[in-house]
Amino acid sequence: MSASPLLYLQSGGPTAVFNATAQGVIEAARSLERPLLATRDGLDGLIEGRLVDTTRVSDSEIARLSSLPGGSFGVSRNMVPSFLEAPQLWLRMRDVLQGHDIHHLLVNGGNGSMGSAARLAEFTRHTGYPLSVIGIPKTIDNDLPGTDFSPGFPSAARFLATLMREVTLDMDSMAQRRVFIMETMGRHTGWLAAATAAAAQHPGAAPHLILLPEVPFEAERFLLRLHQCLERHGHCGITVAEGLSGVDGRPLAETRHDQVYGHEQLGGAGVYLAQLIRQRMEITAHVAQVDCLQRAARHLASGLDLRLAHLAGRVAVEWALAGRHGVMTGITRSAAAVPLWGIAPVSLAEVGDQERKLPAEFIDALNLGVTPAFLDYLRPLLAAGEPVPSAADGLPDCRPIAWGALSLAS
Amino acid sequence: MSASPLLYLQSGGPTAVFNATAQGVIEAARSLERPLLATRDGLDGLIEGRLVDTTRVSDSEIARLSSLPGGSFGVSRNMVPSFLEAPQLWLRMRDVLQGHDIHHLLVNGGNGSMGSAARLAEFTRHTGYPLSVIGIPKTIDNDLPGTDFSPGFPSAARFLATLMREVTLDMDSMAQRRVFIMETMGRHTGWLAAATAAAAQHPGAAPHLILLPEVPFEAERFLLRLHQCLERHGHCGITVAEGLSGVDGRPLAETRHDQVYGHEQLGGAGVYLAQLIRQRMEITAHVAQVDCLQRAARHLASGLDLRLAHLAGRVAVEWALAGRHGVMTGITRSAAAVPLWGIAPVSLAEVGDQERKLPAEFIDALNLGVTPAFLDYLRPLLAAGEPVPSAADGLPDCRPIAWGALSLAS
Repeated sequence: MSASPLLYLQSGGPTAVFNATAQGVIEAARSLERPLLATRDGLDGLIEGRLVDTTRVSDSEIARLSSLPGGSFGVSRNMVPSFLEAPQLWLRMRDVLQGHDIHHLLVNGGNGSMGSAARLAEFTRHTGYPLSVIGIPKTIDNDLPGTDFSPGFPSAARFLATLMREVTLDMDSMAQRRVFIMETMGRHTGWLAAATAAAAQHPGAAPHLILLPEVPFEAERFLLRLHQCLERHGHCGITVAEGLSGVDGRPLAETRHDQVYGHEQLGGAGVYLAQLIRQRMEITAHVAQVDCLQRAARHLASGLDLRLAHLAGRVAVEWALAGRHGVMTGITRSAAAVPLWGIAPVSLAEVGDQERKLPAEFIDALNLGVTPAFLDYLRPLLAAGEPVPSAADGLPDCRPIAWGALSLAS
Repeated sequence: MSASPLLYLQSGGPTAVFNATAQGVIEAARSLERPLLATRDGLDGLIEGRLVDTTRVSDSEIARLSSLPGGSFGVSRNMVPSFLEAPQLWLRMRDVLQGHDIHHLLVNGGNGSMGSAARLAEFTRHTGYPLSVIGIPKTIDNDLPGTDFSPGFPSAARFLATLMREVTLDMDSMAQRRVFIMETMGRHTGWLAAATAAAAQHPGAAPHLILLPEVPFEAERFLLRLHQCLERHGHCGITVAEGLSGVDGRPLAETRHDQVYGHEQLGGAGVYLAQLIRQRMEITAHVAQVDCLQRAARHLASGLDLRLAHLAGRVAVEWALAGRHGVMTGITRSAAAVPLWGIAPVSLAEVGDQERKLPAEFIDALNLGVTPAFLDYLRPLLAAGEPVPSAADGLPDCRPIAWGALSLAS
C-alpha cells in the first residue's frame, strides 16, 4: 500500500447509517489496495490536521462499523468558506493534504457539507495542489437534491412510522378524545413528518393530521380538522414537523404568546400545538419529542438504507480512483413496481447548499396530509434490515471502534 | 362450554406486554374449557355492562394478541369506589355480573387497579352475590409492591436503555460540550429513569447523571456534577424522571420561573433542566421526551417480560378456577446467577393503592446515579424477545383484534 492515501470525512448531524457508508468506503479502499485516512471531527480535522489511519483497524472491526449509530470518526457542523473568504485556512488544508500526500477527498454529508465539497472541488485552481473531490449524500432530512433519497432518511422514517403505528394501539385503548402529537426533525422540510403517514395500516388510522413546513399553519383550520377527527375517530394522532411556520413565515416554535398570558413559549412545535389545544379545546394532548433518537435508532434501520449507504461509499472510492471529480454519488431508482436502485453522478455545484422541499404532488394541503404518490415514493424505502448484533446484556452492541492515535500533519 | 364464564378486565395505562397477559388468560380459559368474557374500557365496561365474548375469536387471532401494544379491550383510568361511597354503582355491577352468570373476575392493572380489585374482593359480603377476584400486575412504573417486577416495566426499561445507548454514539460524534436529556415516565418513582443505567456499555458511558424523584433535586449540586462531567467526558447524558421534585417536595415540572422572566414553565422536567442549563451555563441541551412511546414500543419488548406477563395471566385463571380469591399473581425470582422465575399469591389488600419507591440500596444519591445492586436487579429483565411479526410493508403488524359485537347486560 505505497500508493497515495484517500481521505474520508464525515460531516454534519449523524444518521443511523452514516457508518454504513464509512464501512463501504473502507472496504472498497481495502479491496482496491489503497490506504485510507479519515479526519477526526469532520472538516475541523481537515483544517487542524487531525487524521486517523483506518488501515490499522482489523477487517472484523470494520465489519462491525455499519451496526453503530453516530458518526464513528466524529463530525462538525463547521463548513468550509470560499478561498477568497479564507485563503489562509485553505493553505492550511493544503499543508495537511500535502503532508500525507493526499489527492482524493471524499466528503460524506448533507446540503451544507455538499456546499463545502463544491467549494473544495476548486482546490487545484485556487492552491495549485492536485485534489479530486467526491461527495456522498447523507441526511435524515432528505432535503438534498440530486438523489432519490438521502441515506439516513429511510431509517429515521422507519423509526418514526413504527413508533407512530405502535402508539396508535396505545391511544386506541385509552378513553375518548385522546390527542397524541409527535414532533419530528426535518428543519425547513416536511419529509420526516410526512413519512409517519406510513404508520397507518388501515384507512382512518393515525396519523390523522400531518403538519408540514411547506404548508403555512392556520390555527382555525387545524382546530376544525382536529374537532372533526375527534368526532369521527374518538382520538387524533398528529405529526408536526419542527419547522412548521405560520402564515407570516415565522416558525411556531419561536412564536411568543405575549397576547395570552405574557409568557414565553418554550419547547418546540409539538408543545406549541399542545398549548393551543389546551387553551382552545380544554384537551390535554400528549407530546412525544424524540429529538436525536430518530437519527440514532440503528436498531430500526431500513435494510435498503443500509445497503445504499454502503454502496454510495463504495462507489465514491471507485470513482475517485477512476479519476472522477466534482460529483456526488446520487441514488437512482427505476420506475418499476419493484424498483432497481443505482448510483449516478450529480454535479456538486448543483446540489451544494440547495434544499429540496417536499414537492406539491406529495402534499394534500386540504386535508393536512400526504398524497398516495408520496406513499408510493416512501414505501419501498422502509423494509427491515438485518437485526443488530446484541451485546451480552441483550441490548445492541454499541462498542465504539478504536481508531488509534491521531496522525498530526506537520 | 356451559360453565359460568370468567370475566377479564384491563385497567389503567397500557404497556407493551399488556396483551401478552390477555393472551395468557384467554389461552388458559380455552385449555380449561371455560368461557371468558372481557370488559370494554376497563372498569367502565363492568359498570356499564359493555362486555365482549372472547370465545368468538379464532385461536390464530388470539396467538397474535401478544404482538400488539396497547390494551386490546380498552382501558379506563376510573377506579371503583368503596361500597359505602357508591352502593348504587355496586348494585349495577352486580346486575351485570348476574346477567352473565359471572362469578370470577380477573383485574389486570397497577396500584390503583389493585386497590379497586381489593375493594371488589369484598363483593360477596356487600352484595350477597358470589364473586371471586384475582389481580394480575401491570405497570411500566414498576411501583407495585408484592411482585419482583411489574409486567410492562422490563420492556419500557429495554426501550429506554436501548435508545440511550444508541444516542450515546450520536452524542459522542458531535462537537464538545453536548448535553442530552431523556425524560422518562414513572410518576413518583424512579424505576424507569434508573433503568437507563443499563445503557452504559463501558465505564464513563451515558447516562452520566440520573435524577430520581426519590432524591430531592438541588440545582447547584446538579450543575456542579454536570460541569465535572463535561470536563471529564466532553459531553453529558442525563436521565430525568418526570416526577423529579425539589427540596420543597414540589415537582419541577410545575415550578414557575417568575423570578427570572415572569414566564410560566411549560413542558416537563426535561425542559425545565434544559432551561436551567441554558440560563446558568449557556449550553443548549437536547431534550427527548418519549412520552407514551416508552410503553407502546412492543418491537423492543423484553422476552422475559412477555413470558411472565403471559404466565401471570394463565396462573390467574388457574387460581380462580381452583377457588383462590383476593390475591394478586405476584412474580418471584430465586436468588441465583441465572434466576428462576415463578408466580406466588400476594394479598390484594397488601398491594392495592400502595406505591413501591426505588429502595435506598439502589440509589447512589451522592453521584446522582444507581448502585451495582440495582443493575444486578435490572439486568436479568432485559433480554430480547422474539422479533415482532411484520406486515407486508416491513413495519410491525399492528392490526387490532376484532372482538365483535358488544354483549350488553340487561
